[in-house]
Amino acid sequence: MLVELDRESSLPLYLQISNQIRERIHTGDLPAGTKLPPERRLAAMLGVNRTTIVTAYRELAADGLIEGHVGRGTVVADPDPDSSDAHGLHQIPWNQLFTSTTEVMNDPLIRDTTMISSRPDVISLATGIPSPELYPIELIRGLLDEALHHGGQALLQHCPTEGYEPLRSALGTWMAGEGRPVDPENVLVVAGSQQGLYLLARTLLDPGDLVVIESPTYLGALQVFRAAGARLLPIPVDSAGMRVGMLEDLLARRRPKLIYTLPSFQNPSGATLSLDRRRRLLDLAERYRVPVIEDDPYSVLRYEGPTLPTLYDLDSRGTVIYLSTLSKILFPGFRIGWVAGPNPVIKRLALMKQIVDLDTNPLAQWAVWALLDRGHLRTHVADLQSIYPYRRDLMLDALERHATGLLEWNRPPGGFYIWAKLLDGLRTRDLLPEAARYGVSVAPGESFHVDGEGDSTLRLNFTLPTTDEIEQAIYRLAASIDSLRSARGSGDMRALEAATPIV
Amino acid sequence: MLVELDRESSLPLYLQISNQIRERIHTGDLPAGTKLPPERRLAAMLGVNRTTIVTAYRELAADGLIEGHVGRGTVVADPDPDSSDAHGLHQIPWNQLFTSTTEVMNDPLIRDTTMISSRPDVISLATGIPSPELYPIELIRGLLDEALHHGGQALLQHCPTEGYEPLRSALGTWMAGEGRPVDPENVLVVAGSQQGLYLLARTLLDPGDLVVIESPTYLGALQVFRAAGARLLPIPVDSAGMRVGMLEDLLARRRPKLIYTLPSFQNPSGATLSLDRRRRLLDLAERYRVPVIEDDPYSVLRYEGPTLPTLYDLDSRGTVIYLSTLSKILFPGFRIGWVAGPNPVIKRLALMKQIVDLDTNPLAQWAVWALLDRGHLRTHVADLQSIYPYRRDLMLDALERHATGLLEWNRPPGGFYIWAKLLDGLRTRDLLPEAARYGVSVAPGESFHVDGEGDSTLRLNFTLPTTDEIEQAIYRLAASIDSLRSARGSGDMRALEAATPIV
Repeated sequence: MLVELDRESSLPLYLQISNQIRERIHTGDLPAGTKLPPERRLAAMLGVNRTTIVTAYRELAADGLIEGHVGRGTVVADPDPDSSDAHGLHQIPWNQLFTSTTEVMNDPLIRDTTMISSRPDVISLATGIPSPELYPIELIRGLLDEALHHGGQALLQHCPTEGYEPLRSALGTWMAGEGRPVDPENVLVVAGSQQGLYLLARTLLDPGDLVVIESPTYLGALQVFRAAGARLLPIPVDSAGMRVGMLEDLLARRRPKLIYTLPSFQNPSGATLSLDRRRRLLDLAERYRVPVIEDDPYSVLRYEGPTLPTLYDLDSRGTVIYLSTLSKILFPGFRIGWVAGPNPVIKRLALMKQIVDLDTNPLAQWAVWALLDRGHLRTHVADLQSIYPYRRDLMLDALERHATGLLEWNRPPGGFYIWAKLLDGLRTRDLLPEAARYGVSVAPGESFHVDGEGDSTLRLNFTLPTTDEIEQAIYRLAASIDSLRSARGSGDMRALEAATPIV
Repeated sequence: MLVELDRESSLPLYLQISNQIRERIHTGDLPAGTKLPPERRLAAMLGVNRTTIVTAYRELAADGLIEGHVGRGTVVADPDPDSSDAHGLHQIPWNQLFTSTTEVMNDPLIRDTTMISSRPDVISLATGIPSPELYPIELIRGLLDEALHHGGQALLQHCPTEGYEPLRSALGTWMAGEGRPVDPENVLVVAGSQQGLYLLARTLLDPGDLVVIESPTYLGALQVFRAAGARLLPIPVDSAGMRVGMLEDLLARRRPKLIYTLPSFQNPSGATLSLDRRRRLLDLAERYRVPVIEDDPYSVLRYEGPTLPTLYDLDSRGTVIYLSTLSKILFPGFRIGWVAGPNPVIKRLALMKQIVDLDTNPLAQWAVWALLDRGHLRTHVADLQSIYPYRRDLMLDALERHATGLLEWNRPPGGFYIWAKLLDGLRTRDLLPEAARYGVSVAPGESFHVDGEGDSTLRLNFTLPTTDEIEQAIYRLAASIDSLRSARGSGDMRALEAATPIV
């Protein structure tokens, strides 16, 4: 047996595993090139959770003792002659020094998807960014030139941690639409909404705190909450968004610290929370006094049907903290997002932001302010509202023609994503390498879930690929699913994996 | 009957109970002070398990609606008049929800100094930024225009979390000077060195870990380490930098996790670690295998004397993690800094950065790359090296003329700061309001120390004020110290302070 576990020991299981394998590598018992069992199989063999094996292997990989290769599995690495030196002293054992919060952040599935998506021969449906050919580049070029001509010195210095005051004000007006503007004191400018989410987690979550999330949900949020040491309470999403009927029991029994929701054109599922559920969610949050984080990058990108009020709009008691970004309606490169919420929260987030990065690039803030103040952003969003639904419909049409019987999918009335499911129990993680071979990538739904659920789901982005690419990408995707089905017909892949020899 | 149960309902019994009691409290049906039935009795009355009642009461108690008192049983609580509104519902008690890490970050002394410094009638010697009239604005304007003209789409998208690859490479070359460039794999681009420091703290420090710091040291570092829950072990700084002779004892007895040092033209003291001490510091760090964070924003701003190698240059074993920024030699607004260190550390920091803010503005990264690649930064730094010592000497001369007998100060061979000390036991925190009245601000030394030391020290910046302002500022400062001394002559201020009645 590779490893003997002592369940009475105070040493965590993953450490027992990594220590024993390390020992056997050092003694030469497991020479370079030896194949280690796949994570899933070793987990089954030892009767532990798969993440325990993942963690143990990651330890060993970080020490350079083992290596993972797609298609070859995990093998014992060649010893590095540089890692110890002639003086008998050792380099710093970095891996032993890293905090445990940073252990949770490396999703190999996403890393593989990102690598595949960046290949020039691959059409990426995995990425979630707006169409680059629609970026208003000449406008930005003119604005930056103007800014440096007139306000150069001030716009290259530090600016208040809370944000450039005119931008806070303009964002408050933008959020309100025709209504009463949100007070600038209730707005914090952040380096993308990812930073807003991070600051909220650091400010509101202690390790062990519970957070209600949607399942599936934005994977960047999962990473932030996990890094904060929070425990996650998933509530399933259906076509009308989070199943709010399941919320009260959780609120009453588990006393979560936060509710995190993407009510509009949710990432990844495209679902939108119905008005009735919005009201009930807010009622419950108020009754149990649990703050709601409303993550809302997409709601202005509605392509049909009536506009729904945001939770922040509906909230009259300061229960909702609102989060949005320019990354989905303009471009991500400026790293500008914002948080709106009660002033005590904004103040506390600003204290935290001060230690995280002091402030956000004032030149980029000025440019976004100018886009808002002069009405350019409104016009730009209107353009997107006419172009994106056309791409979505192209993709739906291509799915109809190529993927009927292979996939099920929805038809979102806004946002960036179509949510799909492989039929017949096929797994997206098995599809990814096959799809890569056919020149297309998708976002694996599993990464948007906790506890390895959703393994047959996938997210398809229709804003980044061009109209030509959309047809081609769906064709390739369908072909790769076909191919995966045939491969399974000639022998189950999981059976293959199980046939790897045990050492 | 207090409660009616519906046993067909999907709502758990305890929730039915707590909801109905809550409702009757809100409607005034059960006024404050009303005694509720003992748990055992209510359980018997309703025919439910006693734990159901315990759970229901606990819910209500957690909401502040009921209170348990030994000997008095359970009663309806007095409503808190501040936290309820006309609807009888309550707002979120934000202050109770914030994590303790965010408690440590608000230094009122620094807040006051910042506010005073931003007054238009005040000349700030408190701020630590480069001279705005030297910013190469037209150069930046041309570069951004060029960038958007040629590479607009790519430079407005996301970029790798580790940084824009050509910039990583250019920074590696910049650091090495004439020597062998640092491998780009060992460089991480961050949003200012403050973010680098933050990521390092999050990645390497668990609450309770010990960090060796210099006393005094950069206050942003103190905030970062405190927010990480670290305990700080200060070592005094003299004119040759950290007193390394005191280090070994700390390393051996206390086993710190990190050593944090600013070896060159230290902020705030201006002190520079001697070559001999650099070698000894590194020897000790290697021997005890404690990583060293070298924070080095200022070393290229040397105005006289021979250049010293950085700790990173001297280190042959990967013990040093190097941190620097463009904020002090270019301008702070682009928010570009970098970390150099062993690749496992860079990788781990990148994982952390991914959850903190995904990536850093690629357009700003491109502009900094162009400045480096085309030699502009080298020329710009040469300009600063001829202008700043002139300002320093002006300030030294003004101090000589106006502040002799009031202050002691040093003469730093580089950097941004003169470090000074009030004589006769005067305290900087008492001076600040007086100085503000005279129209000048300084950085209080106390904020750069732990445990309230250094209360008579102050930091004087000579790069931000113009040559005219320098003479004027020192004159005002001297006058305010004179005024403070006279005030003390007519009665000790601390005695006054102690006599203030507590209300």
